[in-house]
Amino acid sequence: MSTSLQINPGRLQSDFDALAAIGATAGGGVNRPALSPAHLAARALFAAQVKQAGLALQIDGAGNHSAILRCPNKSAPTLLLGSHLDSVPEGGRYDGALGVLAALEVLRSIQEAGLKLPVHLEAIDFTDEEGTLVGFIGSGALCGTLTPHDLQNPRGGRQALLAGLARAGLREDGLFTARRDPAALAGYLELHIEQGPRLFNAGDAIGVVTGIVGIASYRMAFTGRANHAGTTPMAARRDAGLGAAGFILAARRLVMEAFPGCVANVGALQLEPGAFNIVPGRAELALECRAEDEDTLERLQTRLLAQAEQEAERYGLGLEVTVLGRHAPAPMSQQVQQAIETAAADLGLCTQRMPSGAGHDAQNLALVCPTGMIFVPSVDGISHSPQESSRWEDCLNGASVLLGAALHLSQNTH
Amino acid sequence: MSTSLQINPGRLQSDFDALAAIGATAGGGVNRPALSPAHLAARALFAAQVKQAGLALQIDGAGNHSAILRCPNKSAPTLLLGSHLDSVPEGGRYDGALGVLAALEVLRSIQEAGLKLPVHLEAIDFTDEEGTLVGFIGSGALCGTLTPHDLQNPRGGRQALLAGLARAGLREDGLFTARRDPAALAGYLELHIEQGPRLFNAGDAIGVVTGIVGIASYRMAFTGRANHAGTTPMAARRDAGLGAAGFILAARRLVMEAFPGCVANVGALQLEPGAFNIVPGRAELALECRAEDEDTLERLQTRLLAQAEQEAERYGLGLEVTVLGRHAPAPMSQQVQQAIETAAADLGLCTQRMPSGAGHDAQNLALVCPTGMIFVPSVDGISHSPQESSRWEDCLNGASVLLGAALHLSQNTH
Repeated sequence: MSTSLQINPGRLQSDFDALAAIGATAGGGVNRPALSPAHLAARALFAAQVKQAGLALQIDGAGNHSAILRCPNKSAPTLLLGSHLDSVPEGGRYDGALGVLAALEVLRSIQEAGLKLPVHLEAIDFTDEEGTLVGFIGSGALCGTLTPHDLQNPRGGRQALLAGLARAGLREDGLFTARRDPAALAGYLELHIEQGPRLFNAGDAIGVVTGIVGIASYRMAFTGRANHAGTTPMAARRDAGLGAAGFILAARRLVMEAFPGCVANVGALQLEPGAFNIVPGRAELALECRAEDEDTLERLQTRLLAQAEQEAERYGLGLEVTVLGRHAPAPMSQQVQQAIETAAADLGLCTQRMPSGAGHDAQNLALVCPTGMIFVPSVDGISHSPQESSRWEDCLNGASVLLGAALHLSQNTH
Repeated sequence: MSTSLQINPGRLQSDFDALAAIGATAGGGVNRPALSPAHLAARALFAAQVKQAGLALQIDGAGNHSAILRCPNKSAPTLLLGSHLDSVPEGGRYDGALGVLAALEVLRSIQEAGLKLPVHLEAIDFTDEEGTLVGFIGSGALCGTLTPHDLQNPRGGRQALLAGLARAGLREDGLFTARRDPAALAGYLELHIEQGPRLFNAGDAIGVVTGIVGIASYRMAFTGRANHAGTTPMAARRDAGLGAAGFILAARRLVMEAFPGCVANVGALQLEPGAFNIVPGRAELALECRAEDEDTLERLQTRLLAQAEQEAERYGLGLEVTVLGRHAPAPMSQQVQQAIETAAADLGLCTQRMPSGAGHDAQNLALVCPTGMIFVPSVDGISHSPQESSRWEDCLNGASVLLGAALHLSQNTH
């Protein structure tokens, strides 16, 4: 094992700073929604960096941009390293960008060292990770989970999708040509900021992701009777707001007491008709819950819905529940977790095994090849915000672990 | 006392039905916001009914429409009977309309009987009772409580006010010419539907209003920190929605346990930024509370605000409170309450003394002359809805009590 092999910190930082200037916002973050002009400019910069490094540039039908360091054996499988260059609206500069540039830096370091690996190495930037348009367009196309149906009524609206594709010179039916044969994939490794406070609070340098949580989302409506708020006695009301309020508190209690490590969120709530002097007749809320394994997610959903029914009954209300979406939990490969831990140990870095509470392209890759993720600490756990930050030293540690883990995995392939 | 004097039920019903056809909605209600074309059409019908009855028609600078039955003694004071012809958007056909038409019917009945009273009798239709534009424009102008300031940033927006005034041929500065000398007012009597369930549930025919509740309204914001709903552990959240939910439940408990007869309502609530996957960083709610006397209203406000602070502290949140408005409670005249009870007793009708939880023009009139209100039962207490309804027999009882009370009061004046 070439323990002497190292990344070039100055080169990585200079690439990172150049990228952070594209779509930069006043608050220190970036605004690069998928296939927006700023996102496409970031991709153009990445392409230039790839060419400057003398690596092969590849752009597939889904717009995924890749740097490739070829193995002499053309039939060797490919080890993918990557992340994404798009951001949420008014996001931070580390989310996604760090993983793509660190992957590129790993390829450059190995190339410079003249090291011959038994796999093709590919640093990939996936399209639409943040879901401004559809969600995971790039990794979904590559792994075969994207369907034409997903494109018909996308999260960001059909018009925004078509405009983005046109801007990027992509064709809707061309997206599906990005699909790869799983047999040609040796694995997938992604470096990412944690987006939560655990590593930062514990003082650990590296998070070894055990799995990406599954997510269930619902729209839930408590229904009562709108009435005059001055003339209807308290005891005679069927106030839909009470059901929603009771559920918000009970859901939190339930998760904290019976589902440690899981989360639930009521992120939006609307009372109707919504006037000062009218008792709410309808309360509609947006609920989401996450768990790391399928069984726990199933139990959590069941308990939350039972709780909602209980609250509706307590206040004499009706309840309507619409299931909006469900992503299954995606466990990470044991082999890849061990490779990450070995690489961190080689560098004397403290690690912590942890689930990812956020979704990532890795959840698609986990379906087709051995997959793992490396987390580095987020200062105060702040994410999807211009205030998002990670200490540069932690970012460099993450890039070094990515290099080490990639080398371990490539040795143990085939 | 002329106990033989009676209203003409058929004439009242035919007037009522004709009026209900103006601005009629599919659900059986009416849509006649103040100074809308439908409202102005209702006023034109009322004017025609007044003229047809041979009564004097008077329209003042605030657009208030009146039928006047003059007393031979020109310097006699005026006993006002009235209500309003405007409705909330998509309102019911009884609210306001019953009181105006019953007042007109009282004047016609007395005129037909050739009865000479020692007061001028005036059946008045007040402008903008429901507050689509400003709130109580007509009675506020008449009683001198309307100010130029009220017209600058009105509830319904400045544009809607100006458009309404133009449509009605009213001038902004002309509104204030409607002011009357309190010495010229013998009193004010208003018949109205209860808009709540008490009379209907108790089986009582007539409500004798003891006072109109005071109202305090607030905008309240709990402030926490918006964060990723997947990666932020439950215990690390500062979820503004928890403060709002806790307050909604605690406010109800407080009012029901410690403030019997009072009400509080959280009628609107907004979580920000309002996404499924973001912990709410801000929860803004609309709070209103009502009490029948000044002291109770003061204590209720204090306790509610203390409760909000307690909830904010419980969940580690900030709290911002904005006082939006306050109407003082308006006690009704004891003399008028007795006149109503005597009139009801003369007719063998069961009465119940009760506060009005809703605001009425009577709260302005109470500031300048002896004032009282007569309630009739609302079926199931439904109000401000096309489903609003009162049994016609109950409406006729109310009109008869209005006649009787007016006769009692006019005899006891001067």
